[in-house]
Amino acid sequence: MTDVIDCPFCEPQERVLKDNASAQVMLSDPRKVPGHLLVMPKRHVEKPWDMTEQEVQDVFELIFFVERRLIGQLGDGCDIRQAYRPFLHQDALKVNHLTFHVIPRTKDDYLYSVAERYEQDLFAELDDLEREAVIKLLK
Amino acid sequence: MTDVIDCPFCEPQERVLKDNASAQVMLSDPRKVPGHLLVMPKRHVEKPWDMTEQEVQDVFELIFFVERRLIGQLGDGCDIRQAYRPFLHQDALKVNHLTFHVIPRTKDDYLYSVAERYEQDLFAELDDLEREAVIKLLK
Repeated sequence: MTDVIDCPFCEPQERVLKDNASAQVMLSDPRKVPGHLLVMPKRHVEKPWDMTEQEVQDVFELIFFVERRLIGQLGDGCDIRQAYRPFLHQDALKVNHLTFHVIPRTKDDYLYSVAERYEQDLFAELDDLEREAVIKLLK
Repeated sequence: MTDVIDCPFCEPQERVLKDNASAQVMLSDPRKVPGHLLVMPKRHVEKPWDMTEQEVQDVFELIFFVERRLIGQLGDGCDIRQAYRPFLHQDALKVNHLTFHVIPRTKDDYLYSVAERYEQDLFAELDDLEREAVIKLLK
């Protein structure tokens, strides 16, 4: 796994704010909103399904911890986002090391007004062809 | 929990495409992109940290299953998103029952070109005051 060599999350000791047996928390820098945190397995994992059961458990123990600390302080709610995008090369905004983003949210916040409101227009009712095609994929 | 009474995900037997002991998969309808799926605990949970360890495990077993079926077919990658937004009332696009969205993604796809590219402009470097404030919250 040549990617490990240049992985900023594999040797981040001084950035780690909190950890447990197999997962760790860092501040996102750059960040989208104040309180934007990163929670990830310590081990270099790239595909979500390569996480062990213990890593899933440890990642969510930390996500739940930080959500409860953020909510009421930096937001009224929180998003959890994980983007598996092997079609993008690693750069300052995209690291291959699997990461869950924790993002404090508030009604009509900046993230909503700048970007997310446009997503609402994408919503379309499922038609039967599409429904059947997806159901077939999961069979 | 009065919300349970009108919860579309608490009695969705005919919509469930796949399940395991404590979690289930449905098609999102309306959906943002083809292959937009919902994975959730069967039990009515609203706060992420109210999920049991078993529910976290079962939800991710199903997320990993559907991601591997979708990738290569309806996208080259996949997003996982969970939005805990108690400040929004339940409606057609927002259900209180805790849900993880699985969304197939491809480079410069419609979701990116319509909405997500604007999020890039939000990225800002952390300044020391903000860094210290968030670190203090997690102490």
